[in-house]
Amino acid sequence: MRFDGRKSDETRQIKMTRGFTKHAQGSVLIEMGDTKVLCTAMVEEKVPMFLKGSGKGWVTAEYAMLPSSTQTRKNRDIAKLRLDGRSTEIQRLIGRSLRSVMNLEALGERTVWIDCDVIQADGGTRCASITGAFVALVDALNAVDKLTPFETYPLQGMVSAVSVGIHEEGAILDLNYVEDSSCMVDMNVIMNHKGEYIELQGTGEERPFTAKELTALLALGEKGNMDLQNFVKETLGSDLGRIEF
Amino acid sequence: MRFDGRKSDETRQIKMTRGFTKHAQGSVLIEMGDTKVLCTAMVEEKVPMFLKGSGKGWVTAEYAMLPSSTQTRKNRDIAKLRLDGRSTEIQRLIGRSLRSVMNLEALGERTVWIDCDVIQADGGTRCASITGAFVALVDALNAVDKLTPFETYPLQGMVSAVSVGIHEEGAILDLNYVEDSSCMVDMNVIMNHKGEYIELQGTGEERPFTAKELTALLALGEKGNMDLQNFVKETLGSDLGRIEF
Amino acid sequence: MRFDGRKSDETRQIKMTRGFTKHAQGSVLIEMGDTKVLCTAMVEEKVPMFLKGSGKGWVTAEYAMLPSSTQTRKNRDIAKLRLDGRSTEIQRLIGRSLRSVMNLEALGERTVWIDCDVIQADGGTRCASITGAFVALVDALNAVDKLTPFETYPLQGMVSAVSVGIHEEGAILDLNYVEDSSCMVDMNVIMNHKGEYIELQGTGEERPFTAKELTALLALGEKGNMDLQNFVKETLGSDLGRIEF
Amino acid sequence: MRFDGRKSDETRQIKMTRGFTKHAQGSVLIEMGDTKVLCTAMVEEKVPMFLKGSGKGWVTAEYAMLPSSTQTRKNRDIAKLRLDGRSTEIQRLIGRSLRSVMNLEALGERTVWIDCDVIQADGGTRCASITGAFVALVDALNAVDKLTPFETYPLQGMVSAVSVGIHEEGAILDLNYVEDSSCMVDMNVIMNHKGEYIELQGTGEERPFTAKELTALLALGEKGNMDLQNFVKETLGSDLGRIEF
Amino acid sequence: MRFDGRKSDETRQIKMTRGFTKHAQGSVLIEMGDTKVLCTAMVEEKVPMFLKGSGKGWVTAEYAMLPSSTQTRKNRDIAKLRLDGRSTEIQRLIGRSLRSVMNLEALGERTVWIDCDVIQADGGTRCASITGAFVALVDALNAVDKLTPFETYPLQGMVSAVSVGIHEEGAILDLNYVEDSSCMVDMNVIMNHKGEYIELQGTGEERPFTAKELTALLALGEKGNMDLQNFVKETLGSDLGRIEF
Amino acid sequence: MRFDGRKSDETRQIKMTRGFTKHAQGSVLIEMGDTKVLCTAMVEEKVPMFLKGSGKGWVTAEYAMLPSSTQTRKNRDIAKLRLDGRSTEIQRLIGRSLRSVMNLEALGERTVWIDCDVIQADGGTRCASITGAFVALVDALNAVDKLTPFETYPLQGMVSAVSVGIHEEGAILDLNYVEDSSCMVDMNVIMNHKGEYIELQGTGEERPFTAKELTALLALGEKGNMDLQNFVKETLGSDLGRIEF
Repeated sequence: MRFDGRKSDETRQIKMTRGFTKHAQGSVLIEMGDTKVLCTAMVEEKVPMFLKGSGKGWVTAEYAMLPSSTQTRKNRDIAKLRLDGRSTEIQRLIGRSLRSVMNLEALGERTVWIDCDVIQADGGTRCASITGAFVALVDALNAVDKLTPFETYPLQGMVSAVSVGIHEEGAILDLNYVEDSSCMVDMNVIMNHKGEYIELQGTGEERPFTAKELTALLALGEKGNMDLQNFVKETLGSDLGRIEF
Repeated sequence: MRFDGRKSDETRQIKMTRGFTKHAQGSVLIEMGDTKVLCTAMVEEKVPMFLKGSGKGWVTAEYAMLPSSTQTRKNRDIAKLRLDGRSTEIQRLIGRSLRSVMNLEALGERTVWIDCDVIQADGGTRCASITGAFVALVDALNAVDKLTPFETYPLQGMVSAVSVGIHEEGAILDLNYVEDSSCMVDMNVIMNHKGEYIELQGTGEERPFTAKELTALLALGEKGNMDLQNFVKETLGSDLGRIEF
Repeated sequence: MRFDGRKSDETRQIKMTRGFTKHAQGSVLIEMGDTKVLCTAMVEEKVPMFLKGSGKGWVTAEYAMLPSSTQTRKNRDIAKLRLDGRSTEIQRLIGRSLRSVMNLEALGERTVWIDCDVIQADGGTRCASITGAFVALVDALNAVDKLTPFETYPLQGMVSAVSVGIHEEGAILDLNYVEDSSCMVDMNVIMNHKGEYIELQGTGEERPFTAKELTALLALGEKGNMDLQNFVKETLGSDLGRIEF
Repeated sequence: MRFDGRKSDETRQIKMTRGFTKHAQGSVLIEMGDTKVLCTAMVEEKVPMFLKGSGKGWVTAEYAMLPSSTQTRKNRDIAKLRLDGRSTEIQRLIGRSLRSVMNLEALGERTVWIDCDVIQADGGTRCASITGAFVALVDALNAVDKLTPFETYPLQGMVSAVSVGIHEEGAILDLNYVEDSSCMVDMNVIMNHKGEYIELQGTGEERPFTAKELTALLALGEKGNMDLQNFVKETLGSDLGRIEF
Repeated sequence: MRFDGRKSDETRQIKMTRGFTKHAQGSVLIEMGDTKVLCTAMVEEKVPMFLKGSGKGWVTAEYAMLPSSTQTRKNRDIAKLRLDGRSTEIQRLIGRSLRSVMNLEALGERTVWIDCDVIQADGGTRCASITGAFVALVDALNAVDKLTPFETYPLQGMVSAVSVGIHEEGAILDLNYVEDSSCMVDMNVIMNHKGEYIELQGTGEERPFTAKELTALLALGEKGNMDLQNFVKETLGSDLGRIEF
Repeated sequence: MRFDGRKSDETRQIKMTRGFTKHAQGSVLIEMGDTKVLCTAMVEEKVPMFLKGSGKGWVTAEYAMLPSSTQTRKNRDIAKLRLDGRSTEIQRLIGRSLRSVMNLEALGERTVWIDCDVIQADGGTRCASITGAFVALVDALNAVDKLTPFETYPLQGMVSAVSVGIHEEGAILDLNYVEDSSCMVDMNVIMNHKGEYIELQGTGEERPFTAKELTALLALGEKGNMDLQNFVKETLGSDLGRIEF
């Protein structure tokens, strides 16, 4: 059993507060245990240069941690005049993951700006960001849809993400900060509603992992994503209605 | 009467959630109507270069708006590689205001990092930041005091801030965004617990203001600050005990 | 009496050299005692993006200190890749102050670039900048007016600025560097020709100030601004003729 | 069969030129078909701040593309004042991969700087960088070892990397640029000499991939890495002698 | 005689590999002894803002050293967020030198991007860059000419560059790194095919130089440039055919 | 005869105001016709990292144009976040020129900061900067010498600079802006008091120049530098006394 009493295949307590703020069309505070990320989606009626005139839209993501979100204060990027390397990596992942379930032609020449701002970090912020941002994206697209209905609804499925890792006592699901720090291998599994992989990122910086361990990690990742997607389905209820599963 | 039903000398509904996040020693979500700012205070056991060896400490503040906190998405500073001019102005004001009630010798060679991150903006974010940051500062200093008691308690008084403005129908207290946008004159009044001025910033970009109008604004500012300080006293209760008033 | 022999309500010796350089339409070297600031105004026949097509013009200001203008050499902003926080605050103040006496519709789609470059600093550079820039602005607008007369003259009044402070022996006017460094409270008073306030910025970082002290400071500020405006009127003579007072 | 005549499980022609330049202790030009990357390793006798006094060393990597390495000229990072997001992601991957086979205590307080500069890009530059950098790292460590022999040799194994993808006709190994552009799923497989995973990065931005497809991709990835490692073993010959397999 | 056996008026061994990479229309690896610079020319069908609508084209150059090209690793510009001062100076020189033999009207509204990336530095990289870039420029212009023949061929002559210096034993031609470091005076001589000067840059930071020494340096510079131009003529053969000498 | 009535070998009217500002130990406003540059020298009692412990000092120069110094307003470097390429080139030239007459061992571990800020530009600002900075340097060194006399005086000679160019009607000395813009060839000649060359920079971007033309330019350059040095000698009088010619 784990330090916080969870079983190895159990996620932390999940909570999602939709409409957490009022200006963004989609605004969700997602909490996975003590990890809290504000995920927002704002729709802008224009596209980046490379898509002008293409009829296609874009989804882009930014990720940042508030200075007070970590145990030791984290300097703001602007103080160093450079975007944090880890944040760059994460926001590119969030963007790719969300675009994977989008029909960008159906979106039309619009940009959806996803912002994932970590209010409190306790492990798994990038995965929480993806899952929370998906819900914000649904809310934002529905807000647009209400005003000017989409011919084809631009969302084609669900996406969620969860971390898994190999600990001294074996593979575990949804690592908190303490577990993450002591893990030898960790992996982020991003899946759609069919249990297919959107993205897989496994890192064995501490020690490599075997094919057998990979199998165990993937099984946990699938379990976790299904739990998350069930939670998302309950949270969104009929608001998921326009996706054609 | 005002659009939202308030009297001209009435603040919006105030709410403060202490301990909003867990890593900072002081962490306060202040809400003034729809304006929500997360104010945190983190103590670091070292000082900037110019104070090394002086025996004195420092209080420094940073202010930023989340991209989704405003009606139209606000680009992050790092995207433009420069700190927003308005943010610069505001964070310098917050820092000066808090230092004005500090005994920096009593603090010892420590830095208190104040971070004011606007979660939702609806006017008056700089004033809310000062008032909220004061509460976070008290919590952070008390946390330090519990572990290694201060010989002399470094806080010497209270500080709070409120905006006042001149509207078509006269002077009003604590402007929300709609009022702020249509104001001809606006002023920020920062006061200590004795009703003395810490800082005054009045701007008549739309039209100048007379000495008589100034008097009306100052009276409202005093009223507002006293209301805020009463709220802060109730919120902090005995945690204000080590300040010698 | 003050160290340099002035009475408490006396400004330093003022000097203004119009046409100090030849490329800018307005170019004024203002000297307030040993403080010397080159204030220039250059008119560009286009406006920033947010005003395109609006029929309105803009006045924007930049402020910088030459590296050799201070006792200890001041690094250039470009060496640190960031605009000095204090300069940001000051140039925003200069811009707001000048715009307060402008009719931006009458200016038409033009930008007036104000540059205040401190050649030698001895206290009060921001106030000297505002007063000097006003004179440069008049010269620049008149230069435009001569070539293509304005239907409505875009200047609607005068603006000047002076610093006041509270010293050990009471309130004093127009602080030099030594006085500024030892002041407990200091305030910048920006006024128009009717003695109305354009902007008020009072700071009690060293100690707070009372309502009574504020009254004393404001009185000195009014006296100083009237002295400065008399000087400006003499300097400009009939060149002020198109302003309708 | 593929456009360039290769079988689906065949890598492009590999070529490695050791000692391509003279200043770096390790300098390898790796060619995978038309992809050419100069990988160098330079050893510096100091460590980053966070390791000072720890007795441990560090391996860090930088990755960049020459402006002329791509079909359309790629602007230099310095021209935009920001490190390319993709380059950030890649250089973090290279660093992690190489550190995974290092014993940083055995390295002592030294930093190995890995530079991967793409001379000509035709797909798979990040994988070529890892494989090429491994060879440069061996050469650099052996150069140090010759002068001041390591007590424990700091390399603990081999690392190589190869890309795999899903094409219209199924899974293929070692994608060139044309294949990469038309791939629906692509994955980078980084392995050690035991066939264990160091890092796995699979992306289904175009369409998700199933568990069955993953199995096919991993099999190709293992085949490719073994081919690469055989090539590396031949290239390095006895210079691999100090690694204890 | 010199350390490497050369006579005082002898260049190092020259080698030029045309078509070194495949994406740039002109791509030349120039080697002067151990100095190796990749010089590329890429033609873009647009011009910088200041030339839009002018009918004229532009040639611009960038110069950089790979981090591993020098004895001690050279940090990338992006790591310091500023373009190296020496690189700035050099790339401006390369651009001016190449433009001096161009007919920019004949080029039409196109930009030729010259990139000189130093693979290995052993003295004289700026001169090698100019000579190598000239050859790349010829190849790129001929590539354009083949597709859409120029009415007037935009190249009007040849340009080459060589360094000369004053050593303990007198003036020498084409300094390598060791000679460069111990030289008291050094000069870069850029010439056209008529032996006329395009640019002269002589620096006596170590000690000044006399008119007599200047004469000796210029004679060597002429000799070296003629040798280089003979080499270039052989290398390019009939590809120089469209220049009207 | 030239447009402004000068003969081809005549400089513009020279004026130098020593002690133009009070904070820098050396502060000279140099005027060459309408070109006005403020040249200051400030001595700091420390050296850059690479000289620490060497016993040697350093002279470094920065050059910038005020935004209002040119006909069209010149944006500040900080507005573009990058140091102007031309300024980089110029300040490196100023630094090298001044260091050429310094004995850096005799200076001791001090840095002399030279700042050349162009107040008004009318051609030849880089040459005026060098000549003016030399006078400021003398004043600054003498100020140090008075407080703590140098054992060996660190200045070993004089340095001055003048521009020459080839015009339609032949070679001319000390070009103003109009002449500079229409010149086909221009050259900066930096000389010491013995008439030896410190630096030569000749540019034939418009058209190349012949050996014969070079001879004419150098003769004019020598004449101009001797005139300037005579002026400097008169200006400095006995303050040049510690240089051993």
